[in-house]
Amino acid sequence: MSEKPKILHQQIVSKSRLFTVEEVEFKFSNGVERTYERLIAGGAGAVMMVAMFDDEHVALIREFGGGIEEYSLTLPKGAVDLGETLEHAANRELQEEIGFAAKKITFLKHMSLSPSYMKSGIDIFLAEDLYPSVLEGDEPEPLELIKWPLANLQELVMRDDCNEGRAIAALYLARDYLDGRKA
Amino acid sequence: MSEKPKILHQQIVSKSRLFTVEEVEFKFSNGVERTYERLIAGGAGAVMMVAMFDDEHVALIREFGGGIEEYSLTLPKGAVDLGETLEHAANRELQEEIGFAAKKITFLKHMSLSPSYMKSGIDIFLAEDLYPSVLEGDEPEPLELIKWPLANLQELVMRDDCNEGRAIAALYLARDYLDGRKA
Repeated sequence: MSEKPKILHQQIVSKSRLFTVEEVEFKFSNGVERTYERLIAGGAGAVMMVAMFDDEHVALIREFGGGIEEYSLTLPKGAVDLGETLEHAANRELQEEIGFAAKKITFLKHMSLSPSYMKSGIDIFLAEDLYPSVLEGDEPEPLELIKWPLANLQELVMRDDCNEGRAIAALYLARDYLDGRKA
Repeated sequence: MSEKPKILHQQIVSKSRLFTVEEVEFKFSNGVERTYERLIAGGAGAVMMVAMFDDEHVALIREFGGGIEEYSLTLPKGAVDLGETLEHAANRELQEEIGFAAKKITFLKHMSLSPSYMKSGIDIFLAEDLYPSVLEGDEPEPLELIKWPLANLQELVMRDDCNEGRAIAALYLARDYLDGRKA
């Protein structure tokens, strides 16, 4: 395994309200120099939750994606506020997006989005022991909540309107974790 | 399920070599207007391959991610060239990244990356009946190739250096697909 490339130079090349692009010049251990462009993460990270209503049913939301211009079935998620713990952010987003809080929050996995081009990652949590609790969110319209049987995961992931890679990964990871705990 | 929001206005707000940011004003069916920023996709799409050496072993690469500044274990992938079919791109990238071509390429799934903020998607393919065939790629250093037993998927996804959400999703989808075919 190679030694990590060294950074020779880096600079911000463009900036909008949400996106900051950085140019980085790396020197690889074999001597090759290569300039990359990457998005640098603003804020304090992001969380995505696999929230279980019982042993069988997971909370999905149907949400409009401004990027893909489609409604899709996915998992509740959101940005971590500055100064907030990941667990707090997870529970806050659940209350904003599905109207439930969780008594039990378990870290499952840190995932990267596009390792070559983005610094951003997202932390995946399993949320259990849910109880009704609503916080006002910033959604432009109420999100539709769907209780999906995790036993039908394969049917879900074959649907065209279930397409977010990291949500699909999170659902499989949670299923593995829950199966492992039962065993 | 709501009617899709209408676009009231859209304009490019920043542009670098790789990233173009667009501001879009949507009007939701409930009358709420909301301005989004999103990355618009350049090029002709992207492909990611679950390449099987035999019934058991999948091709992983260890690659430096300029975004996360770490080496990670992931799947071969790449951008589709203009005028190229997805299947051709899949087979070309395999030859560039792992030094094998596939006689059989099966479409598994279209995945979105970040539906709220990015138009980009990636098409996942299962690649089988591999044979050695090398094409020169544009990697700054040779990628390390690892033949991983798909039966040990759970061990793989628990590793910190296996963290790309869509690759984890693709591996699970391929395993489901292969298991279904055996049954």
